Amino acid sequence: MKALLNYTQLIEEGLRNLEFPDTPTQLYEPQRYILELGGKRIRPILTLLAAELFNTAAQTALPQALAIETFHNFTLIHDDIMDGAPLRRNQPTVHQKWNENIGILSGDALMIRAYQLLGQIQPSLLPDAFDLFNTTALEVCEGQQMDMDFETRMDVSAAEYVEMIRLKTSVLLGCALELGAIVAGATKNDRDELYEFGQHIGIAFQIQDDILDLYADPEKFGKQVGGDVIANKKTILFLTALNVATAEQREILKQLSTEHDLVLKVSRTRALFDHLNVRKLCEDRMKEHYSMALTALDKIQVDPSKKKVLIQLADYLMERDV
Amino acid sequence: MKALLNYTQLIEEGLRNLEFPDTPTQLYEPQRYILELGGKRIRPILTLLAAELFNTAAQTALPQALAIETFHNFTLIHDDIMDGAPLRRNQPTVHQKWNENIGILSGDALMIRAYQLLGQIQPSLLPDAFDLFNTTALEVCEGQQMDMDFETRMDVSAAEYVEMIRLKTSVLLGCALELGAIVAGATKNDRDELYEFGQHIGIAFQIQDDILDLYADPEKFGKQVGGDVIANKKTILFLTALNVATAEQREILKQLSTEHDLVLKVSRTRALFDHLNVRKLCEDRMKEHYSMALTALDKIQVDPSKKKVLIQLADYLMERDV
Repeated sequence: MKALLNYTQLIEEGLRNLEFPDTPTQLYEPQRYILELGGKRIRPILTLLAAELFNTAAQTALPQALAIETFHNFTLIHDDIMDGAPLRRNQPTVHQKWNENIGILSGDALMIRAYQLLGQIQPSLLPDAFDLFNTTALEVCEGQQMDMDFETRMDVSAAEYVEMIRLKTSVLLGCALELGAIVAGATKNDRDELYEFGQHIGIAFQIQDDILDLYADPEKFGKQVGGDVIANKKTILFLTALNVATAEQREILKQLSTEHDLVLKVSRTRALFDHLNVRKLCEDRMKEHYSMALTALDKIQVDPSKKKVLIQLADYLMERDV
Repeated sequence: MKALLNYTQLIEEGLRNLEFPDTPTQLYEPQRYILELGGKRIRPILTLLAAELFNTAAQTALPQALAIETFHNFTLIHDDIMDGAPLRRNQPTVHQKWNENIGILSGDALMIRAYQLLGQIQPSLLPDAFDLFNTTALEVCEGQQMDMDFETRMDVSAAEYVEMIRLKTSVLLGCALELGAIVAGATKNDRDELYEFGQHIGIAFQIQDDILDLYADPEKFGKQVGGDVIANKKTILFLTALNVATAEQREILKQLSTEHDLVLKVSRTRALFDHLNVRKLCEDRMKEHYSMALTALDKIQVDPSKKKVLIQLADYLMERDV
């Protein structure tokens, strides 16, 4: 998204300028490594946009934007260990490139670094920023634990799943935005609405992500369509299907989970989902959150023209018909 | 130590009163579990004593004392994973009782909880407390990484070892004390001296710990005398021996590391250490830090009578001729 290029550059420059001691090498190299793997940097950009929304230079909120990005990368290091993931952005994960102990410890240190960056704020604003950051960080851990719990549970509802993604991923978007608003001295009301905007956009985005995995145009989609079905992932599609399926249909879904012919597995699963109207149900849920996000944004007491870039960003995230 | 009983009770009560959500169970149960395993609670007691040193009620610094203790317990959870330790205070470690993923995540959450407790402070004091806590937390990670690095290095000097224990364990004692001083509004000078006191007591204590492992009275010592020798641990005794040994003596130490007769292994190692005057060298080093601790304490601008309990605590830690 071209309008964001300047912000992306600001973040990348900020990350490059972060100084890490040379030793202990195995504590600091992994931190630089994960930060250099890249990504869209959506979260820290949100912090910068929020500051500007309330008439404060993006640069002023840069340390807090970097706090959000380093915290996010800490969660990536630890989550990759927990998930046993060998790759992240097509590169070896930290625990794969070094080892699990180094992943645990460099992740811990990166979280502390996030707190250090957070602390580079006007002292009178620190208590609010600190409270928000702590609450959010703990919620992210709760979301990750719920995600792990769900792997072995067969009775997860679609609503519980939404709560899990809210905690695991969406609260950090809300936090990123609200931090920028705090730096800019926004009112509590405006801060809360902006947080809601971020949180609901986050949920809508995650639902969209699940939908696209099965329903994207294969020619535009970057990865294998149906990857989640093949991996038996409990996505919002699968859980919605389970929630509305008859006992017989649930049995079919269970059988499909062990189907070896993967093309057949995907096509039959999709056929059953279609029969159950799953895509529509999930899209409705997605739109509901998208709409709540826009309602919250609408309530913020700034000139509507200033909100455009946030709506653009939300649309950029949502309209990925890839 | 009887004079500390009231403080211990205050800490235990504070820990008991910490509320943890019921769910996700596997995120919060391990945190309560590790905090209930007990311990002498020296670190949080230091915070309370520091507050009183500057005429502030111990209770006022309780949240910060608990921040230190929860942070310490977070490090225990993660260190036990890294060390593959099955037991802690004769009970299963968190990753042993649950699993490694739960250890990683509940440890992360406990660190965040420590920050939340730290934040329960008069807002104007938060920036200083936050800076100190962040710096210390990062140093503790550096110390742990150095400790792991040393396992595979054969050229560690005694001085490097002291730097490792300073970072891994002693800075947290300094931090615990300085936090109490911050809560009590002490001057920067007094805060710095108190930090130095804690740091040097910590180093002296760790050196003493290494010495006692081999030279304690077996009848009073709670565990096997020579345990570190048997486990081929690179203690200050071993590293000091290596530093002063001839090539021939180093070869003997190397051979002893694979000696199967453990009684022989311990007695021959001790004989060589005695020949090299290792105990005296280490005791001198220990006394040096103890003396630096007392010098720092002496400089603090409060009535000497108020410092007595800290000297008592230091002596209690050091005179363990068990």
